[in-house]
Amino acid sequence: MSDEIAENGTANGDVPEIELIIKASTIDGRRKGACLFCQEYFMDLYLLAELKTISLKVTTVDMQKPPPDFRTNFEATHPPILIDNGLAILENEKIERHIMKSVPGGHNLFVQDKEVASLIENLYSKLKLVLVRKDEQKSAALRAHLGRIDGLLERRGTRFLTGDTMCCFDCELMPRLQHIRVAGKYFVDFEIPTSFRALWRYMYHMYQLDAFTQSCPADQDIINHYKLQQALKMKKHEELETPTFTTSIPIDVSENSNAE
Amino acid sequence: MSDEIAENGTANGDVPEIELIIKASTIDGRRKGACLFCQEYFMDLYLLAELKTISLKVTTVDMQKPPPDFRTNFEATHPPILIDNGLAILENEKIERHIMKSVPGGHNLFVQDKEVASLIENLYSKLKLVLVRKDEQKSAALRAHLGRIDGLLERRGTRFLTGDTMCCFDCELMPRLQHIRVAGKYFVDFEIPTSFRALWRYMYHMYQLDAFTQSCPADQDIINHYKLQQALKMKKHEELETPTFTTSIPIDVSENSNAE
Repeated sequence: MSDEIAENGTANGDVPEIELIIKASTIDGRRKGACLFCQEYFMDLYLLAELKTISLKVTTVDMQKPPPDFRTNFEATHPPILIDNGLAILENEKIERHIMKSVPGGHNLFVQDKEVASLIENLYSKLKLVLVRKDEQKSAALRAHLGRIDGLLERRGTRFLTGDTMCCFDCELMPRLQHIRVAGKYFVDFEIPTSFRALWRYMYHMYQLDAFTQSCPADQDIINHYKLQQALKMKKHEELETPTFTTSIPIDVSENSNAE
Repeated sequence: MSDEIAENGTANGDVPEIELIIKASTIDGRRKGACLFCQEYFMDLYLLAELKTISLKVTTVDMQKPPPDFRTNFEATHPPILIDNGLAILENEKIERHIMKSVPGGHNLFVQDKEVASLIENLYSKLKLVLVRKDEQKSAALRAHLGRIDGLLERRGTRFLTGDTMCCFDCELMPRLQHIRVAGKYFVDFEIPTSFRALWRYMYHMYQLDAFTQSCPADQDIINHYKLQQALKMKKHEELETPTFTTSIPIDVSENSNAE
């Protein structure tokens, strides 16, 4: 299906092999794409593979030219797709539930923490608003939200959101922070303030982790992801327009004036 | 192949049927696309159909999802494609030569006029430069070129470039003038000066002609044509870039400072 396959953990039959199919880059089909849910589940499973409760196989699929066997099996379904013991799980929420309930070790990732859950849940939609509206008000709202996350990290003093080990919330937050950092800077010159020291420290620790660096798309892929979204949005807008034909003339050139 | 078929001339066997396959709109696959050569040959053949030397069938193909029989017959070849008596002609220069030498009546369109030929040949490349560079110098060069065409039309005093009937040069020039008018205005606010009265009069006459109006793409299709070109150019540029990963940190958050 793809030539990029990452293997982790032991594959000697002691532990189940889990396959995660992720979207490829829209620039180079051999690279990882900038799909947030793909990266989130990649990180979840990578952590489990490091703990050797599973063996992980990651397959990259170029959706611009999916291989025939992918189209046969999954038709129009987009990654992420999780395959466990011949069972394909296609929906994000079901993948998350499967990792939590059925993948060995998974339950350890799913910490109960209402404060963190509600703190991070609407962050990403604020980036989208910044990219669409491109006004300072939306940038300020995103900055304020990041400030609240900085405040929680500062107050708790832990390396990660819920403690000194990673949990599902970190796998959810960090890919989004990276999109905010890279796309925010590129499209609207948005920067995460350096005064958010606890947040930067958090990101610093993430940048040291294989689970993050192995799953992270290149900056160009993140940027191109939003460029394509904008191009599609423009196109959609135009599809709704009634076609017009510019054939008016700004000066008087009727037959009479022609004969003058 | 498509549901949009324009028929002209008599189809009773007295005259040969010529089929022209043109690119569909990239917004709505049922509409005509903004392909300059497609429109040029459409106009040539429309004039011949009006003279009843041929019967014309125009087929629109959506290149984003070409029908299976199109792919089987022509693979990666893009329209315009001319089909005459079971013979498919795929290259622009060969289509032009075929219309001139082999399509009944075609030789009448091909007037010899070196002054006009050299006057219009580099016009379109100046629009491309305006759209890429977006500077006033390139706009001025395009405006000056249009001024020379205005001058010729003014001096000659004819309705069309080489006389009072249309010829191949008019079918070449007018689609390009329309792209200059619509895309120039949209992307860089370029306008054809109203002082170019002879040029506007020329366009006025064109806007009355079925050969032009029947073959002309909608403004939105012209605009989207250049938007897609720009998006593809951006993508190409990014394909050449070495992927980079933003993982630097703007403040000192090393382990020591963390412990402070």
